[in-house]
Amino acid sequence: MQLYNYFRSSASYRVRIALALKGLDYDYLPVHLVRNEQQGEAYTALNTAALVPTLVDGEQTVSQSLAIIEYLDETHPQPPLLPADAAGRARVRALALDIACEIHPLNNLRVLRFLTRDMRISEDDKNRWYRHWVETGLSAVEQRLQAAPSRFCHGEQPTLADCVLVPQIFNAQRFDCRLDHVPQIMRVFDACMALPAFSGTQPSACPDAEA
Amino acid sequence: MQLYNYFRSSASYRVRIALALKGLDYDYLPVHLVRNEQQGEAYTALNTAALVPTLVDGEQTVSQSLAIIEYLDETHPQPPLLPADAAGRARVRALALDIACEIHPLNNLRVLRFLTRDMRISEDDKNRWYRHWVETGLSAVEQRLQAAPSRFCHGEQPTLADCVLVPQIFNAQRFDCRLDHVPQIMRVFDACMALPAFSGTQPSACPDAEA
Repeated sequence: MQLYNYFRSSASYRVRIALALKGLDYDYLPVHLVRNEQQGEAYTALNTAALVPTLVDGEQTVSQSLAIIEYLDETHPQPPLLPADAAGRARVRALALDIACEIHPLNNLRVLRFLTRDMRISEDDKNRWYRHWVETGLSAVEQRLQAAPSRFCHGEQPTLADCVLVPQIFNAQRFDCRLDHVPQIMRVFDACMALPAFSGTQPSACPDAEA
Repeated sequence: MQLYNYFRSSASYRVRIALALKGLDYDYLPVHLVRNEQQGEAYTALNTAALVPTLVDGEQTVSQSLAIIEYLDETHPQPPLLPADAAGRARVRALALDIACEIHPLNNLRVLRFLTRDMRISEDDKNRWYRHWVETGLSAVEQRLQAAPSRFCHGEQPTLADCVLVPQIFNAQRFDCRLDHVPQIMRVFDACMALPAFSGTQPSACPDAEA
């Protein structure tokens, strides 16, 4: 398998964690977002939306990080990244979507660029925008976790929800967001980071990492 | 089952379509977003994120529209809303996420309110923002559909991807977005709207509809 991705892209990091949890080898193919390599012809031939990550698995090309992780879970079921019961699966997917739909899309690079370049908002307002969605979004996740606290987001093993949560915390830390209001999230984050699948795939450990 | 939702919320409409495709009865419980009913104590006790929709199925409370539709597909498998093969499932999920992660989160009511009230951007700039994400996001979806055109987003039966696409087109039309650059999407939209599951659950057909 080949993973087209970028060290600092949190959608990419989600998939790196899932591949590592499943013990799958892959070629790491960097796509430099700040240099706009995702908009080059070579990459858009693979992914018309010009977004990372893209997974190539033989004949299959899969986009969208959550779809990639579900695909990996279906094609390589062990260890499972979703619980066995429908209610548990729904809870894990909802937690992942609470981050992937309510926080991350508002704060990715192309959106921040559009805010400052096209909407002409100031750097200070951009940072305020960023922190608002991270802090309010994580607060909603915290309440869901506190309703049924466990070692990981759901139960005693990492799931899709943890694959999505951990990269979001990296983003939050990079933009100096408040995290003191989400203690259960931070306990889960620490439990995840104790595992090589999470720590060994973090942005600073990637082949294309920059200071 | 009970569905807490709002006639004009496109995330709500996705779930109404899925319930109708599966022929499932439910109580329609309106939550008025413009009056901020989603932030009242009664609703946040059910959904801490204060977002619609929420599905209550006996003991289970499920949030996030895509998680709800996957839950319905697992608990009521006929007719299936995902293909049988892993590659097809990945394509359908990616199409759904292309809209649910890349377009819709940037344009929902709370985000538009934050842009105008907190970031103090003008009404014109807000509309320009809205149309930018709809038009560029749908363009990426169009290219994916044109790579393997079919009656619905994926094949000859409606899937999760159609449940997400159709409400997005309603939003696009409401905000006068360009749609002449996405002919395959509009063919799929027309095929969907010919079915009562899509037309009978549209915003104007809801019990809480307003002019």
